[in-house]
Amino acid sequence: MKTKRIIILGAGNGGQAMAAAIALAGYEVVLYDRFEEAIAPVLQRGGIELSGVSAQGFARLAKVTTDLKEALLEKGLILVVLPAFAHAYIAEQIAPLLRRDDMIILSPGSTGGALEFRKILAERGAPTGVKVGETNTLIYACRIIGPGQVKIMGVKDYLGVAAFPAKDTEVLLEPLKEIYPQAHAEENVLFTALNNMNPIFHVFPTLANLGWIEATQGNFRFYYDGITTSVAKLVEAVDRERMMLCQSLRISTLSGIEWQKKFYGARGDALPEVLQSNRAYEEIQAPRSKETRLLTEDVPMGLVPMVEIAKIAGVPTPFMDSAILLASEIMGQDYRATGRNLDAMGLAGLNKEQLLRRVKEGD
Amino acid sequence: MKTKRIIILGAGNGGQAMAAAIALAGYEVVLYDRFEEAIAPVLQRGGIELSGVSAQGFARLAKVTTDLKEALLEKGLILVVLPAFAHAYIAEQIAPLLRRDDMIILSPGSTGGALEFRKILAERGAPTGVKVGETNTLIYACRIIGPGQVKIMGVKDYLGVAAFPAKDTEVLLEPLKEIYPQAHAEENVLFTALNNMNPIFHVFPTLANLGWIEATQGNFRFYYDGITTSVAKLVEAVDRERMMLCQSLRISTLSGIEWQKKFYGARGDALPEVLQSNRAYEEIQAPRSKETRLLTEDVPMGLVPMVEIAKIAGVPTPFMDSAILLASEIMGQDYRATGRNLDAMGLAGLNKEQLLRRVKEGD
Repeated sequence: MKTKRIIILGAGNGGQAMAAAIALAGYEVVLYDRFEEAIAPVLQRGGIELSGVSAQGFARLAKVTTDLKEALLEKGLILVVLPAFAHAYIAEQIAPLLRRDDMIILSPGSTGGALEFRKILAERGAPTGVKVGETNTLIYACRIIGPGQVKIMGVKDYLGVAAFPAKDTEVLLEPLKEIYPQAHAEENVLFTALNNMNPIFHVFPTLANLGWIEATQGNFRFYYDGITTSVAKLVEAVDRERMMLCQSLRISTLSGIEWQKKFYGARGDALPEVLQSNRAYEEIQAPRSKETRLLTEDVPMGLVPMVEIAKIAGVPTPFMDSAILLASEIMGQDYRATGRNLDAMGLAGLNKEQLLRRVKEGD
Repeated sequence: MKTKRIIILGAGNGGQAMAAAIALAGYEVVLYDRFEEAIAPVLQRGGIELSGVSAQGFARLAKVTTDLKEALLEKGLILVVLPAFAHAYIAEQIAPLLRRDDMIILSPGSTGGALEFRKILAERGAPTGVKVGETNTLIYACRIIGPGQVKIMGVKDYLGVAAFPAKDTEVLLEPLKEIYPQAHAEENVLFTALNNMNPIFHVFPTLANLGWIEATQGNFRFYYDGITTSVAKLVEAVDRERMMLCQSLRISTLSGIEWQKKFYGARGDALPEVLQSNRAYEEIQAPRSKETRLLTEDVPMGLVPMVEIAKIAGVPTPFMDSAILLASEIMGQDYRATGRNLDAMGLAGLNKEQLLRRVKEGD
């Protein structure tokens, strides 16, 4: 074990699960969250009780804090496990605290996370040697089930990883692979950006069930009940646009259906059937209102950067555009302006060849 | 009573209700439908038993037939009471049977009905003296409740009427006003076209409840349960586009909320509250599937002609465009191609001033 210390920024479901699992694997784990109430239960309990399909037991952490400076006092691999809309805030806060060879992995980056993160670090004068990368998905299906108690329901057996620029991927992958052998190097951050499947499976199923969600406070199963034949057609229309974009940018990908089969062992032909064969989805309820990350994260930090990148690639995205329009209207937000647009990702003004060079070389 | 004979084309809910009510008012009524099964119950019963809030009693009709030639044998005011997607078929069939001064009113015309109807009549060589007009809504809220039995639950107290061209409106209004004194002459067919409120209140509430409709076969109340706060935002967004279009073309209109208050006596501030104060909507269930006129009529014969007219007017319609895109995808139809586009309405190539002249003068 070359890496001794892992610094996890974010103490939500994913952050606590990773903190506990990594600590139980023998690492020194530092857990940070901006909000006192997020870490208070862990402090009180003196650690995290982990249950479920991964490691089980009581995990003691090296440090639990709301003080970012304190969290970064000693060197370690930094894992950012936060909703994508919090990435910019953390990047701003962390920039002055970083050392020349620090390594940061957004896990996951949503779409364009590493691009945005690095742009902010540069603007804030962080050392140029800092490495930034991202995964395309959260490693666990997990939930906080009580104060200081976390359950892991599923572990992905493949984790795509890319750094920005891509020439940094191998050096960044190395420490992560020690912890998660299922981590694999991908072409570049366009892979992780465009293989973010959340916007595909979350946004239209929420929009096409809005009335049901609001009339019943989400009293139905999101995937099992809510993704009917017609709703699935909208999911597949958005997924086709995403795949066209991957093809245009020479990024490997799977269709939503193939992805369900490969990573969840789902079976079947039509999408509703495939989703209903995914046991991990069986108990997932619909969100209780429109105030859900299925919209507040997956539209501005998922669909918006996808359509922005599609503009550079010259790929039409009418279904993604529609979803952004409708979500913006019901949320009272202008997600094209406030979301991860080309400017936020530092990609404004690039053409397709320049974009491909940028993600590879960084310039 | 100058008009003696009324010929009603279409024996659905609206056609049967109008046939019965008009017959009970002392007119000779001919009822035609293309489908044997539509008129068989009326033939068998020897007329229509009318109940509800309008006239009540047993209405004997002068003639009930599936033979259009037979229906038109004697002269009379022709009322077309059919789903909008059947207008073109009837126009084709009726063209060779018309007399020089026949008068036809589509009731309602949906959006662009009279324009399309007249274009087909001209192409098929109908006499140029034939007058064609339309109403903006069906006069009744009504239902066939048994074989030869119809119930009228509500009667609109205002009916907008316009002929194409508008110079024919007064002569066409005269016989209709004898029957329905609440009929009023409007500016031109752009009024009736753009004051078709069905696409506004039907399309997004169906799309934003797709999962609920398909998962429960529409087992919820369409207006009372399905139009929640967020769904209402989409309704109002489409309604704003419709009103912008009216303003651009100098057509009087009311907002959806004002319309609910004026014609249904609804009350309240926010749209969900207003709709839930409309007693006529209390028992209206959601459609049982996506195969509903709320999509199959209101998209191709409502939203499509609206966005087509908006192109001439230079008014952007992103929400209507989105609704057409999503509905086309789930129905497996290209509604922009198959719906009432500029070509179908005979408006292709016109600019805004030419359009305003066309609806006024006919050339």
